[in-house]
Amino acid sequence: MRNPLLVPDLRELIQGGEVHALRDFISDQHPGRVAELIEDLDDHDGDAFFGVLEARDRAEVLSYLDIDKQNRLVEAMPPQAAAELLRLMSHDERAALVNRLDEDFVDEVLPNLAQAERDDIRRLTSYEPSTAGAVMTTDYVTLPPHITVREALEKLRHEAPDRETIYYTYVVDHNRRLIGFVSLKRLILARRSAVIEEIMQRDVIFGRVDEDQESVARQIDKYDLLALPIIDADDRLVGIVTHDDAMDILRQEQTEDILKFGGVSPDPEADTAPYWQSSVLSVVRRRIKWLLLLFLAENFTFPVLEYFQWVTEPKRYPDLALFVPLLIGTGGNAGSQTVSTVIRGLALGEIKLHKSGRVLLRELLTGVCLGLILGTIGIAYAHLWRGQPWGVSSVLGLSLFGICVWANTIGAIVPLTARRFKIDPAVISAPFITTLVDATGLVLYFTIAIVLLGLTR
Amino acid sequence: MRNPLLVPDLRELIQGGEVHALRDFISDQHPGRVAELIEDLDDHDGDAFFGVLEARDRAEVLSYLDIDKQNRLVEAMPPQAAAELLRLMSHDERAALVNRLDEDFVDEVLPNLAQAERDDIRRLTSYEPSTAGAVMTTDYVTLPPHITVREALEKLRHEAPDRETIYYTYVVDHNRRLIGFVSLKRLILARRSAVIEEIMQRDVIFGRVDEDQESVARQIDKYDLLALPIIDADDRLVGIVTHDDAMDILRQEQTEDILKFGGVSPDPEADTAPYWQSSVLSVVRRRIKWLLLLFLAENFTFPVLEYFQWVTEPKRYPDLALFVPLLIGTGGNAGSQTVSTVIRGLALGEIKLHKSGRVLLRELLTGVCLGLILGTIGIAYAHLWRGQPWGVSSVLGLSLFGICVWANTIGAIVPLTARRFKIDPAVISAPFITTLVDATGLVLYFTIAIVLLGLTR
Repeated sequence: MRNPLLVPDLRELIQGGEVHALRDFISDQHPGRVAELIEDLDDHDGDAFFGVLEARDRAEVLSYLDIDKQNRLVEAMPPQAAAELLRLMSHDERAALVNRLDEDFVDEVLPNLAQAERDDIRRLTSYEPSTAGAVMTTDYVTLPPHITVREALEKLRHEAPDRETIYYTYVVDHNRRLIGFVSLKRLILARRSAVIEEIMQRDVIFGRVDEDQESVARQIDKYDLLALPIIDADDRLVGIVTHDDAMDILRQEQTEDILKFGGVSPDPEADTAPYWQSSVLSVVRRRIKWLLLLFLAENFTFPVLEYFQWVTEPKRYPDLALFVPLLIGTGGNAGSQTVSTVIRGLALGEIKLHKSGRVLLRELLTGVCLGLILGTIGIAYAHLWRGQPWGVSSVLGLSLFGICVWANTIGAIVPLTARRFKIDPAVISAPFITTLVDATGLVLYFTIAIVLLGLTR
Repeated sequence: MRNPLLVPDLRELIQGGEVHALRDFISDQHPGRVAELIEDLDDHDGDAFFGVLEARDRAEVLSYLDIDKQNRLVEAMPPQAAAELLRLMSHDERAALVNRLDEDFVDEVLPNLAQAERDDIRRLTSYEPSTAGAVMTTDYVTLPPHITVREALEKLRHEAPDRETIYYTYVVDHNRRLIGFVSLKRLILARRSAVIEEIMQRDVIFGRVDEDQESVARQIDKYDLLALPIIDADDRLVGIVTHDDAMDILRQEQTEDILKFGGVSPDPEADTAPYWQSSVLSVVRRRIKWLLLLFLAENFTFPVLEYFQWVTEPKRYPDLALFVPLLIGTGGNAGSQTVSTVIRGLALGEIKLHKSGRVLLRELLTGVCLGLILGTIGIAYAHLWRGQPWGVSSVLGLSLFGICVWANTIGAIVPLTARRFKIDPAVISAPFITTLVDATGLVLYFTIAIVLLGLTR
């Protein structure tokens, strides 16, 4: 969507100091596009362009820029200008920005703001990360229950410039307790003389300020909301979480899930652009702990193989050892399939714990079907392609069957158990299941070999 | 959020036939909540409740119900009532419903609708699945450029009941070409006598009707939009995709990504509740093809081990064989970590192809760091815990180093290459990389052993 043709024209306007032409250009553009253009320009021109914008446009464009650029641009401003920018920014964005800025700089800037704004910033920056409180904004519209629709529309028009959204309004009583909700659509359709109390929806869907951000975002997704009101322990309205923040939260949670599933701890610092934001050292730190843990778990394959070493002695069945990677690899693959399915079902709330039995049955059945197919193919493969006698071939086939059933079973049981003990099931990664299947799969394999081939030590 | 206390009360109202009380109850509830209550009731009471609702409420509640329940409820209606329901539903929801309903039933229902509605349904059901056309809706508001803000607000008020959103309006010329965009906020803030043309934003962010649904959803996410206008090949406005649909699309794409990453082909039929909707047979079908493909790939470990069998003969180093699962397991784990990171970076557009070199360098560096740590630990582990001589211990340590670097490299190269050849990188699953590392890792291991231990055949 970026337009490379615009950049040279813009550069000319900037270098010519054509302030009016630049401001005109802005008014036809989405702030996100303006931010892209600033990033396409070199730092010098980009900074000059940003400097030319009117304060309100600047406040809107800023949040679409790279986080590093945001910090740099704001910290280069005189304290008064930075304060004016903060005043005009949406309240959640500015709280996030203040959290990232240099503390000394913030101490210089804040005294330039009105008391109410300072309190708002202090309150919003004080919530626990990843809670509804930490992502909500406070620039929403409230209505008292007894005014008319005409008065409400007038209030909306008056407050619109400083509100993140005017499409949803919340009705509060004199203690700021949330008692109703009215959409702008309902307001527009209502009689001008109707009283808010008559037209409001009383059963409001809300979140709690200490609730997990993901659960709030899922509510917004589920009910197709533009915003979700957030209330405190006394049922007072303290903020709203908007649909675009919900999308950001879900994207971020999904990134975490896929990384965890691959066996990587997500970077708590990097929220918007996790790939490039983390240093190599932080990546190594977040990966090595899992690799070491898995190494420790995988190390049990050593004593298992050692214990059964006599089975693969030259006078016995040395070729059984050659199938080991194939067998445990297949088990790991089947386990990965199951665990990805179950983890996703849990994350979306499709799989409820009280249905664990049905999940297990379903995965067991799937494992039996997969095992029958792979087992049959395994026998044919070992006998026809690898020239093994029927005995060894049958051991492989039967083991493939067993390992598929087993991998499917633990691929379902382990994340379900994690959830039951309130551990995030996404930490049950594909590598974790694979590793678990490796050592146990080997025991299965050699036991089947000993029984089927009638071996004694 | 479900309220079990409400269900007995509702049941009483339904069985007492208290139509007015029920309708009153509805007006205070979000349609999504009403749908939950219907699902919490048994089928008989739930159907009766649904039957009592006013037509417009029914149209809103319907889309929040389970897909199977939706189909059943609609197909049980007389054709006229079903037609009335379709008339009142949002246009994208009804197109999706018509696509799912029994064809004979649809043939009975459609003649009861006006020509314009029939054409709309036919058009919306005709787009390729997973394109913007297939998910967009047509119940949006357009404005001509020359009317005043006052006239525009009047038009909005008039059309609001039948529009999915009135918060974004699109300005079109006499050929329906998209020439501008005005938010309701901007309308409310503008002078009543201003002309739309003066206040509209001219550089509209849009999608194309044949564009992939995910790319449309990502635009909505990126620019925090409530809706994205969709234009056809002649630049004419043909629909909009709303923020709630974008969230659904992203959730669905994410589900597909995590399943693919676990080595499962997603079910093309199941979009809303993938876990329970697919039959076990369809699950087996979608998993077995990957298992077989991976089995085929993994089978190359057999000739590799066979070729190097002499190294682990009793007179040589039999214990080298005991480290095989540990070694290739670790390689697979390191590969899974890298591939999950790179795939997610590609999916979010953070990793651009022209930065492939930097990605590769970064992953290589990470692999070297991880390899150094694991290699050192590997030597100590083999010597101290497993009582191996320094020679064998060094072989293991060096191999662990090599396999980490190698797994990180191919974990980055393979998805980047897939993207370059326009293959969805998400099909590069964790099992795929694990399998790839297994056979190649073994070659590395035995080669290092032969060189380091000075073996000759």
